[in-house]
Amino acid sequence: MKTIRTAVVLVALVAAGTLTARAQDPLPSWNDGPAKKAIVDFVKLTIEKASPKFVPVEARIATFDQDGTLWVEHPIYSQVMYCLDRVPALAKAKPELVSVEPFKTVLSGNREAIAKLTMPDLEKIAVATLTGMSTDDFQAEVKKWIAEASDGRWKKHYTELTYQPMQEVLKYLRASGYKTYIVTGGGQDFVRVYSEETYGIPPEQVVGSALGTQYGYDKNGKPFLTKEPKLLLNDDRAGKPEGIHLMIGRRPYAAFGNSDGDRQMLEYTGAGDGARLMMLVLHDDARREYAYGPATGLPDTKVGTFTQALYDEAKRKGWTVISMKTDWKKILAFEQ
Amino acid sequence: MKTIRTAVVLVALVAAGTLTARAQDPLPSWNDGPAKKAIVDFVKLTIEKASPKFVPVEARIATFDQDGTLWVEHPIYSQVMYCLDRVPALAKAKPELVSVEPFKTVLSGNREAIAKLTMPDLEKIAVATLTGMSTDDFQAEVKKWIAEASDGRWKKHYTELTYQPMQEVLKYLRASGYKTYIVTGGGQDFVRVYSEETYGIPPEQVVGSALGTQYGYDKNGKPFLTKEPKLLLNDDRAGKPEGIHLMIGRRPYAAFGNSDGDRQMLEYTGAGDGARLMMLVLHDDARREYAYGPATGLPDTKVGTFTQALYDEAKRKGWTVISMKTDWKKILAFEQ
Repeated sequence: MKTIRTAVVLVALVAAGTLTARAQDPLPSWNDGPAKKAIVDFVKLTIEKASPKFVPVEARIATFDQDGTLWVEHPIYSQVMYCLDRVPALAKAKPELVSVEPFKTVLSGNREAIAKLTMPDLEKIAVATLTGMSTDDFQAEVKKWIAEASDGRWKKHYTELTYQPMQEVLKYLRASGYKTYIVTGGGQDFVRVYSEETYGIPPEQVVGSALGTQYGYDKNGKPFLTKEPKLLLNDDRAGKPEGIHLMIGRRPYAAFGNSDGDRQMLEYTGAGDGARLMMLVLHDDARREYAYGPATGLPDTKVGTFTQALYDEAKRKGWTVISMKTDWKKILAFEQ
Repeated sequence: MKTIRTAVVLVALVAAGTLTARAQDPLPSWNDGPAKKAIVDFVKLTIEKASPKFVPVEARIATFDQDGTLWVEHPIYSQVMYCLDRVPALAKAKPELVSVEPFKTVLSGNREAIAKLTMPDLEKIAVATLTGMSTDDFQAEVKKWIAEASDGRWKKHYTELTYQPMQEVLKYLRASGYKTYIVTGGGQDFVRVYSEETYGIPPEQVVGSALGTQYGYDKNGKPFLTKEPKLLLNDDRAGKPEGIHLMIGRRPYAAFGNSDGDRQMLEYTGAGDGARLMMLVLHDDARREYAYGPATGLPDTKVGTFTQALYDEAKRKGWTVISMKTDWKKILAFEQ
C-alpha cells in the first residue's frame, strides 16, 4: 500500500513539474539578447538526445568564477574584509603584533591608510588570519563572520550580494543535468563554508586557492587538521585550468568569468570539442552595481581587471560578453 | 498525454524497485557475520529518517582506498606495472636511457633483478613515465594499457581483479544516497582513467597522489596541460585526511582500507560525531587471493602493510576487520 501511495504522489509531482517547466522562463532576470540566447541555445544543444552536440549527463560540468561573476567584488573582495576584520582578535591572542606593520595600520582603523596597503601587506595579513588554526575552528569563525558582517554600500550580508541572473543560470544548468562548480582565486576553505546555502553548490564542488593542512592529534588523541602557510594551489589565471584538472579531472563544457584571472579557464574550456559556452560578465552598470576596468573605458581597480586584450580575445574567439547594464533586468535580488 | 504516460511508467518502476529491494540481499557475496552486519546496521542507522543518527543525504560521503581494498594489489601495484611497461617506449624516445640505471635493468627483462629495484629506483621510473607529456596523451596511454595488460596469476585484465563484495558495498552505499570516493595512494590521474567504468566512480570522486600540471599552448595556440614532476599531494597515511580535506572538504561517514597507509583516514573518519563506519580488509586467504602482512602472522611484503599495531588500534577503537577468508563468499567475480 505504501508503495502505491508513493507512486501516486510521484505522478502528481511529475505532472506538475512538467507543466511548470513548460510555462516558465528559466532566466526571468535576463533581457532577451545575444547573452541570454547563447545560454539557452547551449543548453538545448547539449541536453537534447537528438542533438549532434549532445553531452552525456556525467560529462556536464560548468565552472563559475565567484568574485565579480557570482557576487559583488567591488570595492574589495569580501575575503579580504574577513582577514582585516580578524586582525583585532589576532592581536588579542598575539599582543606582539600590535606594534608591527601591517597589523598596526589595520588596528588604527584609518580607512585611507588601510586602502593603501600593498599586496605583500595583504599577504602577511592573510597568512596570519587564515593559518595556524584547526580547519574546524576556521570554519566556525567564517560561519560566524558571514552571518554578521555587512557591506558598506547596501548594508547587506555579503551572501545577499549575489547576482540574481547568475543564480538563475546555476539553477537552469543544474536542472539540465550540469554539475555546477565554483572555480575561484579566493580561498577554497573560505568559500566552502557558505557555498551550499548561498549558491546550492556543495563544498566538494568548490575549487579555490588552497593552503596545505597538517594532520595531528590533540591532547586527548583526537585527530584534527591544522591550516598551514603553504600554498598548494594558486587558483587564478593558469592556476584555474590546473586546479580544474586537479580537483575535477574533466574539461568543463561551460565556463563563466569576469576578469583576466579567468582567461585561461575560458581558453581551456573552449579548446574542447563539441558545443562549449564561454561567458564574461562586464561590470558596466555604475548605477545599479559598479563600472570598472579598461574594457569599460574606465580606470583599473584593485579587483577583477577586465582588460581590453581580454575583450578582444573574447570577440575573436566568439565568447559572449554579458553587459550587466543591458543584459540583466535585475542585478541583485533585493533591487526594486 | 506524454506526461501521463511517463508517470505510468514511473509508477511501474517505483513499484518494481521497491519490491526488488525488499526481496534482494544488497550484499550477496558476504557471509553473515559481524562485518556484513556492521555495514547493514550503519546504512540503516544513517539513512532512516526516524533514526537518531540520521545523516542528511548531502553529507553522506564514503571513502575507499583502492589497492588491496577494492582490487588486488599483490604481488605488485598495477600502476607500478604500468610504469615498468612504459619503459621500452620511453627508451625509444630517449635512447640515452638505455644504458642508465634503473632503466637498463627494466629493459633487460630480468624479473629477479626488476623485483629487487629499490624505492628510489621506482621513483625515478615513475617520474620518467608519468610526467613530461600532456594530460590528454597520458590518459590515452593509460586507457590503452588498461585495455591490453593482464596480471601474472589469473591472466585477466587488472580491472577484472576487483573484489566482488566491495563492488556490492559501493553499489549498496550509492543506492543509500552515499557519494562514494576513491582515496588512494596511487596516482589520481591514473585511477581516474578507469574508475567510472570499473567502480561506477566518476573521475571527480577520485582523490589520489597528484602531480602538478603546467598550462601552456601548442604551436597552433591551442592550450593544454603538461604533467610536471612536482608532487602536489602525497595521498598516503596523513596525506589521506589532508587529501580528503583538500578535495572533498567534508569528513567521511564511512572509510575502508587495508593497510597502515589508511590508518589516519580511518582515525579522521572515526573522530566525527554520530554513526561512523571504519573497516579494514585483511588479506588472509592465500588460496583464493593472497595472505600477507604481520597481522596475518605472515612476513611483510612490498604492498599494503597491515601491522599488528594497526590491528590492535582497530580492535581498541571498534573498527571492523574484514577477513577475506571468512567474511567473503566470493572474492573475484569470475571465481567458481
